[in-house]
Amino acid sequence: MEQRISLITLGVTDLARSRYFYEHGLGWQPSSASNEQVSFFQTGSMVLALYGKTALAQDAQLAPEGTGFGGIALAYNVRQREEVDAVLAEAQAAGATLLTSAQETDWGGYAGYFADLDGYPWEVAWNPHFPLLDDGSVQLPQ
Amino acid sequence: MEQRISLITLGVTDLARSRYFYEHGLGWQPSSASNEQVSFFQTGSMVLALYGKTALAQDAQLAPEGTGFGGIALAYNVRQREEVDAVLAEAQAAGATLLTSAQETDWGGYAGYFADLDGYPWEVAWNPHFPLLDDGSVQLPQ
Repeated sequence: MEQRISLITLGVTDLARSRYFYEHGLGWQPSSASNEQVSFFQTGSMVLALYGKTALAQDAQLAPEGTGFGGIALAYNVRQREEVDAVLAEAQAAGATLLTSAQETDWGGYAGYFADLDGYPWEVAWNPHFPLLDDGSVQLPQ
Repeated sequence: MEQRISLITLGVTDLARSRYFYEHGLGWQPSSASNEQVSFFQTGSMVLALYGKTALAQDAQLAPEGTGFGGIALAYNVRQREEVDAVLAEAQAAGATLLTSAQETDWGGYAGYFADLDGYPWEVAWNPHFPLLDDGSVQLPQ
């Protein structure tokens, strides 16, 4: 198995509402491959998809019920420390919930969390140990 | 907010066990930035991180309890239809659970699902509508 991920699919309750959040709230451009059942956003080498949560569970043959913390967090790293608060504010203005205000982290960065409309947690972080390439890619040391 | 994702973090129960699964089971190479608390894997323009589930919940100030479907699926797309069954078999040999055997999909592809050691669902898919670039990136139509 090659070392890569093709898509992350978020199972959402209301696709139109979630698409509006990512498209107009965060300013992302959906692909023309999107339709009434699914929205696709190009994110670097991979794709973020929004799809009905019940349909997603059915595809994986899992029971759709679930409560509490789903166990996954997404992260958006910024180029400059000052951007963290700005991005958290942008997400809140778009309807996201602030989970933690930005603060110094024990790993030497500065970060906070918001939850999107379905509660999926996003960390917004400035991480001086993981500088971003010009195109926004994260490049780890080997 | 730029249109990109920096990291996906999977909250795991036993980091050593999960790292072994991704490193030796699936053959992925951890970054030297990994340590006893967290494992990092470069995946194209972004990073897959493995981190304790309780610690991850605490970082996001969420209660760590959760049951059932977490609402997120990851996907690994292959270059050739025949690879789907091989990758599902590779994951099972590494200790993953088969959720659905590979089958024709209603969108014209061929796909199945496995769950990793913490139950996170991975779709393994051949999607003729989303051809992969040479480096494995997915490139959507604009």
